Amino acid sequence: MAEILRAPKGLDGVAVADTSIAKSDADGTLIYRGYAIKDLFERSTFEESCYLILYGRLPTKGELEEFEAKLRRYSMVPHNVYELVKAIPHEAHQMDVLRTAVSGLGATEGGISSEEQELSIIAQMPTLVANCYRLNQGTEPAEPDPSLSLSANYLYMLTGKKPTSFEAWSFERMLILYLEHDLNASAFTVRVVASTLADIYSACTAGLAALKGPLHGGANEAAMQMLLKIGSAGNARSYVQETLAKREKIMGFGHRIYKTVDPRSQLAKKLLRELLEKQGKSLETYKLCEAVENAVWDFKKLPSNVDFYAAPIFLNLGIPIETFTPIFASSRTVGWVAHYNEQLMDNRIYRPDAIYIGEKGLKYIPLDSRDA
Amino acid sequence: MAEILRAPKGLDGVAVADTSIAKSDADGTLIYRGYAIKDLFERSTFEESCYLILYGRLPTKGELEEFEAKLRRYSMVPHNVYELVKAIPHEAHQMDVLRTAVSGLGATEGGISSEEQELSIIAQMPTLVANCYRLNQGTEPAEPDPSLSLSANYLYMLTGKKPTSFEAWSFERMLILYLEHDLNASAFTVRVVASTLADIYSACTAGLAALKGPLHGGANEAAMQMLLKIGSAGNARSYVQETLAKREKIMGFGHRIYKTVDPRSQLAKKLLRELLEKQGKSLETYKLCEAVENAVWDFKKLPSNVDFYAAPIFLNLGIPIETFTPIFASSRTVGWVAHYNEQLMDNRIYRPDAIYIGEKGLKYIPLDSRDA
Repeated sequence: MAEILRAPKGLDGVAVADTSIAKSDADGTLIYRGYAIKDLFERSTFEESCYLILYGRLPTKGELEEFEAKLRRYSMVPHNVYELVKAIPHEAHQMDVLRTAVSGLGATEGGISSEEQELSIIAQMPTLVANCYRLNQGTEPAEPDPSLSLSANYLYMLTGKKPTSFEAWSFERMLILYLEHDLNASAFTVRVVASTLADIYSACTAGLAALKGPLHGGANEAAMQMLLKIGSAGNARSYVQETLAKREKIMGFGHRIYKTVDPRSQLAKKLLRELLEKQGKSLETYKLCEAVENAVWDFKKLPSNVDFYAAPIFLNLGIPIETFTPIFASSRTVGWVAHYNEQLMDNRIYRPDAIYIGEKGLKYIPLDSRDA
Repeated sequence: MAEILRAPKGLDGVAVADTSIAKSDADGTLIYRGYAIKDLFERSTFEESCYLILYGRLPTKGELEEFEAKLRRYSMVPHNVYELVKAIPHEAHQMDVLRTAVSGLGATEGGISSEEQELSIIAQMPTLVANCYRLNQGTEPAEPDPSLSLSANYLYMLTGKKPTSFEAWSFERMLILYLEHDLNASAFTVRVVASTLADIYSACTAGLAALKGPLHGGANEAAMQMLLKIGSAGNARSYVQETLAKREKIMGFGHRIYKTVDPRSQLAKKLLRELLEKQGKSLETYKLCEAVENAVWDFKKLPSNVDFYAAPIFLNLGIPIETFTPIFASSRTVGWVAHYNEQLMDNRIYRPDAIYIGEKGLKYIPLDSRDA
C-alpha cells in the first residue's frame, strides 16, 4: 500500500493545485492574473476585471464591448426560477434562497453550451440577488435596464433608486474587490465538485453552500450587525475589550492569509470616507469603524478584512443587510467559474484519505441478543 | 512564511482527517463503525445501519424503535417544497431537481433544531426522490405509508406497486450498501462546507452537487444505459474490446480504493441472481453482467464496482432509471450527516494553498492605450 501523507487540519499550507488566477500574499498583496488589486480597484470596471479573471488577460476595446453585450443579453432570469423562489417562505435566509435559485437555474438551463452557461450564471447572479430579495419583500422582480452598466443596474435593482455616478462607482469598486480570492473554502468546494465533472450550476450551488457559513461569507452581515450594536466610536474600545474577554469573535477581523493587512480592507476604508463625504454625511460611521479597528489591533493584533469596511459602504449605498452576503457571492461567482475551468484543465477527482481511528472486527449481534 | 506542502493531484493518499465512521480498504473490505459490510448486508436493516453510522454503535431494541418512529414522523415533506419542484421544467435531470429540492428544504426548515434537521433530511430524502420523479411525470406526490418499513415504502413510492417481501428486502440491501463510503468526493465536499459552519442542508446540497458528476454518482445510471445497449452476454466481449480500443470508459468499473474487488459489488452480484430467481425471470441479465465483468477483467484488470450490479437490481425492481443516482444520494445522506458531525467535532475551515504559476507585476494599461 502506498504511504499515507498526513495533512494539517483544514489543509493549511498544503498546495492542492497550480493556479494562475489570483494570488493573495501574507505581506498584504493581492493580484488578479498578475495585476495589483489597487490598480484594478482604482482604474478598471467590473466587466473588464471579470474578463481578465475569466480569460487571463485584459480585453481590447472590441473584446470588452462584445463581452459587455453578452453579459447584458444573458442577464434575464427565466421566469420559472422566480416561480420557484416564490415557493420559499418569506422568513428564509437570503443565502438559502439564492442557493436554491441557482440550483433551480441549473435544472432549467441544461440545454445551453458550457460557455453560455458560464457567462449566463455570472450575468444572472446580480438579477437573482436583487430579485430574490424583492420577491421576499412581496415586490415584483425588477428587469435589468440595458442602458445602465452592470453595477449601476445591480445597485438600482437592489435599492429601487437610481444611484449617483459616485455611488454606482463605489458599488462597482466593492464588486471588484470581491471577484476572486484564490483557494478559500468556497472556491475549493467549487473545484472539488468540478473534479467529479458536474456542471457549473452544481459547482456554484456548492460554492454558495460553503459561502453561507458564518466562518466564510457570512462575515460582512455579521460585521454590520456588530457596528450597529456598538453605535459610536466612543463605545468601540470597551465593546472590543468586553467581547474579547468573553472569548467571542470580533466580526470582520483576521484572515488565514493576511496577518498584518488585508489590501482590500485598506482600499475599502478610503472609499468609505470618500463616499460619506460625497453623500454629505457625517463621518461618524467612519470614525466608529476606525476606532474598532484600532482597538482590535491594540488588543489582538488582528487586521480588519474586506468584509469589515464592505458592510458600512453597502449600508450607506442603501443596500438591505440581508443581501450583503449574496452580493459577495454574486461577484465571487466570477472567480468560481475561473476555478471550475482551471480544475478541468488538469483534472483528477478529489478523493482524499482519512486515518481510520474507529473500531475494527466487531461481531454483529442480532437485535434480540443485544443488551438493553 | 511556513513551508508549503505539495499534495498529489486529487489529494490521492493524503489523509485530511481522522474518522471512525467507515473504512474501505484496498484488500476489498469495507466496514461501517467496525462492522463488516457483509454482516450488515445479510443481517441488518436500513434503519439499524443508519443508527449505527450516525451514533457509532448498534441500537438496543428500544433505541431502534424510537429511532424508527422518529424517521417515520419526519418523513413528510413540506408542501411548499413540492410547489418549488413544480416550477422546474419536466426535462430537467432528476439530480438537478433533487439538489434544488433539498436546498429549498433548507430554506424552509430553518427553525428546527440541528438534530431534528439531521434526522428529517435523512427521512425526507426517500420521499423527495420518489416525489420529484412523480411530479416530473405529472403524477401527484405520494404520501409515505406509515405501516411499511422505510425501504418498502420507498420502493412503493418509486414504482407505485406494493413490492413482494423479497423485493423490499433486496432494495433495502442496496440502500445499506450505499449508506457510506468514507472520504469520496461528495463526503469530502460535505466536510469542506461543514467546516465553514454552514448548516446541514447547505452541506447536503453541496454533496448532491458533487454526486451529480459522471465521475462520481452518475455511474449507476450510465452502467444501466451501457448494459441495455450491449443487450446480451454474447455481445459483451466485443463491446468491451471496441470501447477500450476507442479509449472510452466502461461504466461501473474501477475504483480509487478497491483494486481487485469491491466487496459491495460481490454482494450485489449474488443478490441480482437471487432476485431474478425469486421473480421467476431468466438469468440472461445476470449472464450479461458477468460476461461484461469477465471481459473487463481480462482486458483491463479492473473490478466491477457497486454501481455496476446496483443498476440491473434497481431495473428489475421496476425502478425508473432516472432515479438511480438520486436513490444512491438518498442513502448516502446518512454518511454525509455523520461526516458533517465528525467534521464539527474537530473543526478548522478548509483553506488549502495553491502554487501560483501565473504572471506577476503586470502594469495596468488603460483601455484606450491597449493594442487592438
